[in-house]
Amino acid sequence: MQKPTLPKGTRDFGPEQMRKRLFIFDTIRQTFQRFGFQPLETPSIENLSTLTGKYGDEGDQLLFKILNSGDFAASLTDADLDAVRGSGGSKKLTPKLAEKGLRYDLTVPFARYVVMNRNNIALPFKRYQMQPVWRADRPQKGRYREFYQCDADVVGTDSLLCEAEIVLMVHEVFRNLGVQHFTLKINNRKILAGIAEVIGVPGQESTLSVAIDKLDKIGKDKVLDELRERGFSDAAIASLDPLFAETTDLTATLNQLKNWLATSEIAQKGIIELEETMQLVEQYGLTNPRIEFDATLARGLSYYTGAIFEVKANGVSIGSVSGGGRYDNLTGAFGMPGLSGVGISFGVDRIYDVMDELNLFPTGAGQGTTVLLVPFDADARAVALPLLRQLRTASIVAELYPDFAKVKKMLEYANTRTIPFVVLIGSDEVQTGQLSVRNMTTGEQQKMSADEVVAFVQQKSPVR
Amino acid sequence: MQKPTLPKGTRDFGPEQMRKRLFIFDTIRQTFQRFGFQPLETPSIENLSTLTGKYGDEGDQLLFKILNSGDFAASLTDADLDAVRGSGGSKKLTPKLAEKGLRYDLTVPFARYVVMNRNNIALPFKRYQMQPVWRADRPQKGRYREFYQCDADVVGTDSLLCEAEIVLMVHEVFRNLGVQHFTLKINNRKILAGIAEVIGVPGQESTLSVAIDKLDKIGKDKVLDELRERGFSDAAIASLDPLFAETTDLTATLNQLKNWLATSEIAQKGIIELEETMQLVEQYGLTNPRIEFDATLARGLSYYTGAIFEVKANGVSIGSVSGGGRYDNLTGAFGMPGLSGVGISFGVDRIYDVMDELNLFPTGAGQGTTVLLVPFDADARAVALPLLRQLRTASIVAELYPDFAKVKKMLEYANTRTIPFVVLIGSDEVQTGQLSVRNMTTGEQQKMSADEVVAFVQQKSPVR
Repeated sequence: MQKPTLPKGTRDFGPEQMRKRLFIFDTIRQTFQRFGFQPLETPSIENLSTLTGKYGDEGDQLLFKILNSGDFAASLTDADLDAVRGSGGSKKLTPKLAEKGLRYDLTVPFARYVVMNRNNIALPFKRYQMQPVWRADRPQKGRYREFYQCDADVVGTDSLLCEAEIVLMVHEVFRNLGVQHFTLKINNRKILAGIAEVIGVPGQESTLSVAIDKLDKIGKDKVLDELRERGFSDAAIASLDPLFAETTDLTATLNQLKNWLATSEIAQKGIIELEETMQLVEQYGLTNPRIEFDATLARGLSYYTGAIFEVKANGVSIGSVSGGGRYDNLTGAFGMPGLSGVGISFGVDRIYDVMDELNLFPTGAGQGTTVLLVPFDADARAVALPLLRQLRTASIVAELYPDFAKVKKMLEYANTRTIPFVVLIGSDEVQTGQLSVRNMTTGEQQKMSADEVVAFVQQKSPVR
Repeated sequence: MQKPTLPKGTRDFGPEQMRKRLFIFDTIRQTFQRFGFQPLETPSIENLSTLTGKYGDEGDQLLFKILNSGDFAASLTDADLDAVRGSGGSKKLTPKLAEKGLRYDLTVPFARYVVMNRNNIALPFKRYQMQPVWRADRPQKGRYREFYQCDADVVGTDSLLCEAEIVLMVHEVFRNLGVQHFTLKINNRKILAGIAEVIGVPGQESTLSVAIDKLDKIGKDKVLDELRERGFSDAAIASLDPLFAETTDLTATLNQLKNWLATSEIAQKGIIELEETMQLVEQYGLTNPRIEFDATLARGLSYYTGAIFEVKANGVSIGSVSGGGRYDNLTGAFGMPGLSGVGISFGVDRIYDVMDELNLFPTGAGQGTTVLLVPFDADARAVALPLLRQLRTASIVAELYPDFAKVKKMLEYANTRTIPFVVLIGSDEVQTGQLSVRNMTTGEQQKMSADEVVAFVQQKSPVR
């Protein structure tokens, strides 16, 4: 018999991990909902015609493809089979073998949904989506082949209020999670486009962004090296210098930028957008904002056209836990051009790691059952069952040990499960009606009536 | 440009449907948790070696298989390619092309998890799992290729308390959902085994079950026809008669059964198990139980060995919404024999249909945003933003219309979104601080301060 294994890059989530993950999911969902984002779910399986060509060549390679059902090989011609004997045969064969694939992100399915339902959707459309995605990436620490994304997007308006709302929502999500110390960096692609203009490489802000995006990881010198390799002149690179200047407050920084990029219309537009977003956030009355303008924030993805966001938790060396930005052509690939939108994505796995490392999960987030009832015989069980019902009616998570086992074994079970309270019911307890309640943390044991047990546990433990 | 489509048998769930589905998911999850079932999630992708051979030949055919990544065709030999030219080539080729597949149910991954984590799991182990599964079935009304299952199982004990707990939990789930009128049918496979013995076809209770399982759909005569076709003798079929007898109360029915099946030890065991389960349910103090013993309840699946359950909603012609039973060898296929368990599965799609048809979704379950703030200009927006924050702090789902549009357009937007309250803020409102609150249902409009708006909306609407 073969020992069962998991496919590489995939994971089981056991009870404790799941309870903590559910805390994260619930918090994000509730916050999304409070901000008026509406839930959407799309199928895991999409037509490859929907997915292919949306993520670049590398992305196409990373799509999980589903083997056609039935007698798929019957459609293969002799020419197909002969082609396979040559090199690159797999690529030629794939379209004959697979017409469906697994969702690679939540953005393309969202765009497909908007286009397919364009006549029934009221714009602006605010949706959130929390579902797994799949990528046939080489698995490594922190990178999995199946992982969740939690996205919120507004499409159908270019109002900067949406950017402001995202800034507010990010604050709300992390505060609700208990992650107080984080930094939300904001920039605007138009400023990056302006920089490209001013240093003499107009239109090359994407190349610029991809390189600058690595600033945190590889440092300024290597970023400049990369730009040189990508054909930026020494003059262009030298004139990038103000970008790396240390600055103090926002107004000073923006003024400096306005001067440097005075000749670029698009840069000025970006700066104004940024200022207006900041003003809206201020009008909302956000207390203790964690937002920071960073002209070097780039985010690699090429489809951003306005604001870009990135969130990191302070005090841990874990990458960004959230990111997003404005795009101007989400649905263009599906024949519906000109729909502007802005979105944010939260990475549950990274957030989990941050909260675990900083010990931020609230007591009870990993906690399962609160009370275990332990009857010694059938008579005791007849006493335990109504108490079980009473406890649950009071919203207390309660279980009854199903077998009549040795007391030691049952207490060990409660310990392994980290159940904080055990109610022992033997013939004594049945006769007197006074049940023995054991605090598994302290080992203390006291007698009380069934009604008192409910009140006692309710007072001592988180109710869910 | 190709119009995007969905793969057949798959669905998008838009906002209103999603909110109702989330109500069902949340209710089931909370009830599972209150009963001490612990959350588990397994990957969507499993090795085909884990999945194959667990669901019968038909099931193997219905597994979605994932095309290997990379240059999968490089491993194909000339012999492989030649074989494809013959008939049945697909079957021969599949193992070369795919080593992973999509989860077909939640039971087999659960068994795999238990075996892989046997050293870290405290038995009895109670887990719940709510995740989608995939089957390459022919799509038809009510049958999809991707759908959710919500399962709760206990393994590692054969205590009948677990059966009783499932009966209780079923009641709790449907009552929490608001489905008051349902019938939970219960039977025991041992009784069916006893019937097989007594009518002279010992060991053939599976064949018997598959046929009797169709009683509701095709009627008694056709069930008997099927048994005849499957080789049951006329004498055997004639002696089945007491099974279809109309009976009144449980005690009478069980006594009748005890007499009929007096010679079968296993039948007597089944009857005792049933009686004990019923007694435990009674001791718990369940009010107005909806449980009904039905000796003809069979459930097709062959792995059940004890209690079997099935739940139907009354007053609708929708199939069973929940079902389950006891099995004695969940993990045997993975080399860990003898682990007994009992489980129940809830079908979200069917429950949705029932609740939709009977109009049982609570007000607010389909409801999204409660208040839309509609400022006419930037000054008004500066008044709207702090109010937006106030509303959300009071747990009211509130949005701000992001653009400055015509009032008519913004009100139409609120209507389309079925947002019940709109707060209009123009220059008048900015000056006086008296905002105009419009009830979109009645068309009534009244003036009040921002603080009053919060109190007014809070009082008028469900808070989430």
